Amino acid sequence: MQHFSEEFSAEVVKQQYANCKDIRLKTIMESAVTHLHEFVKEVEPTQEEWMYMIEYLTKTGQKCDDKRQEFILLSDVLGISALVDTINNRKTLNATESTVLGPFHVKNAPIKEMGDNINYDGKGEPAYIFGSVTDTDGNPIDGAEIDVWQANEDGFYDIQQPDVQPKMNLRGIFSTKDDGKYWFKSVKPKFYSIPTDGPVGTMIYATGRHPNRPAHLHYIVSAEGYKPVVTHVFVKGSEYLDSDAVFGVKDSLISEYVLIEDSMKAKEIGFETSYYELEFNFVLEKYSL
Amino acid sequence: MQHFSEEFSAEVVKQQYANCKDIRLKTIMESAVTHLHEFVKEVEPTQEEWMYMIEYLTKTGQKCDDKRQEFILLSDVLGISALVDTINNRKTLNATESTVLGPFHVKNAPIKEMGDNINYDGKGEPAYIFGSVTDTDGNPIDGAEIDVWQANEDGFYDIQQPDVQPKMNLRGIFSTKDDGKYWFKSVKPKFYSIPTDGPVGTMIYATGRHPNRPAHLHYIVSAEGYKPVVTHVFVKGSEYLDSDAVFGVKDSLISEYVLIEDSMKAKEIGFETSYYELEFNFVLEKYSL
Repeated sequence: MQHFSEEFSAEVVKQQYANCKDIRLKTIMESAVTHLHEFVKEVEPTQEEWMYMIEYLTKTGQKCDDKRQEFILLSDVLGISALVDTINNRKTLNATESTVLGPFHVKNAPIKEMGDNINYDGKGEPAYIFGSVTDTDGNPIDGAEIDVWQANEDGFYDIQQPDVQPKMNLRGIFSTKDDGKYWFKSVKPKFYSIPTDGPVGTMIYATGRHPNRPAHLHYIVSAEGYKPVVTHVFVKGSEYLDSDAVFGVKDSLISEYVLIEDSMKAKEIGFETSYYELEFNFVLEKYSL
Repeated sequence: MQHFSEEFSAEVVKQQYANCKDIRLKTIMESAVTHLHEFVKEVEPTQEEWMYMIEYLTKTGQKCDDKRQEFILLSDVLGISALVDTINNRKTLNATESTVLGPFHVKNAPIKEMGDNINYDGKGEPAYIFGSVTDTDGNPIDGAEIDVWQANEDGFYDIQQPDVQPKMNLRGIFSTKDDGKYWFKSVKPKFYSIPTDGPVGTMIYATGRHPNRPAHLHYIVSAEGYKPVVTHVFVKGSEYLDSDAVFGVKDSLISEYVLIEDSMKAKEIGFETSYYELEFNFVLEKYSL
């Protein structure tokens, strides 16, 4: 066995994983050690910088409670969450791309009928959202479940403002029939900020970044026999589309909210004068046998 | 600006540090992002593995309080503390090598006279420790301060056992005269375990490692005009010398505790029959002008 030296530091540490019986854990630890040592050798932190990092990570852990997960937020703003999501949801063919789940999904959203309005607080610019769920050959999927959620006009999700927003505001679960179509009413999303009152916010501001996410609508689309897709649809032209603080944006997920200034059509749908229309079509990939 | 993709994930994240005005911070963040993304791409964690890592780091932060710093311990057992120490204390010439400080140094250790015994609890095998402090040309250093501390026969430092050990047991500060010599009485150190009741212990055991440190004596040796050295002297032949849980061992820091079975010499020094003798000579490097 070799003793410690700067030159062989990672190799010396990895010697101690030689007896690790869990081969997957061994692989992960050896890779973590390799890359951590490369990072330290590249930046050569002073003892004070190293101590700052120790204290930063400590504060990040201590900011977490049953409502707040600051380490996930740190993973998000470093693009790690987006990367892990992408690696685990590589798409073949023309299936819809995934993006990060985020912390605002709830499991018991209300079951809705096609055409329902999920905007209970009446704020914002009305939007009519529609599209289809098909397989990768373009065949409509019967019984696909579309779980949708979004922030309100002020940039907050219902669960962030339990005393302000109606319960289950801007959430709903829709099921397709044999034509694979879906349609519902909501509001055009706005951009919003991730929480900045913790260590992640400190880093964002210290490094000249901003904490904002471009406007988007969340979806989980699933159907029996198909890989579910957890994704967003981003508003074309939204502020921060090119600098999402959590790196959720993928080119294929950007879609236009088209302004429809036609009061006849608006009234047909159930709006007053004008509204936005968003079409987004989901393509699910079959589970491979 | 590019949107997120697996291929260019690190580059997309680094775009957001373009406006960071603190150049040092920018360098550190860009390097951290590069190596974190390389790690994730190498191991391709599942969502469950990623969540385990998030929870592991969270628990590590939450284990910390005013007495316990689990993130430093994690840094220690991954060899990061040893690496940062080594990078910041690269030696030229023949100066004494440094190693990690560890969490058991106290600032107000008692001032001692040469020859004093710092072993207050009377346990263990008596040892006579001596040597010199010189500059890199071999000239003795007058007024060098030798701050020494160690664990007792049971493997605990005094501050770990405030109700068991005498206060300031096995600690002392000695000052050299113009001959640069030092000598004092103590006990031969024993190996001991780092704390294992937290996330670090979980990792140590899950990966087939052990939590032990080989027997050692801690020193901080300093003198006006010279770079201070924070180091250990390791007991030659100690258990775990080839697998120190915190990677403090360097070849040049291992020295032999020689058994002296000569009751005349023992009585002269102040011991009863036999004792161990340890010689270790410190070489300090002048501050460059």
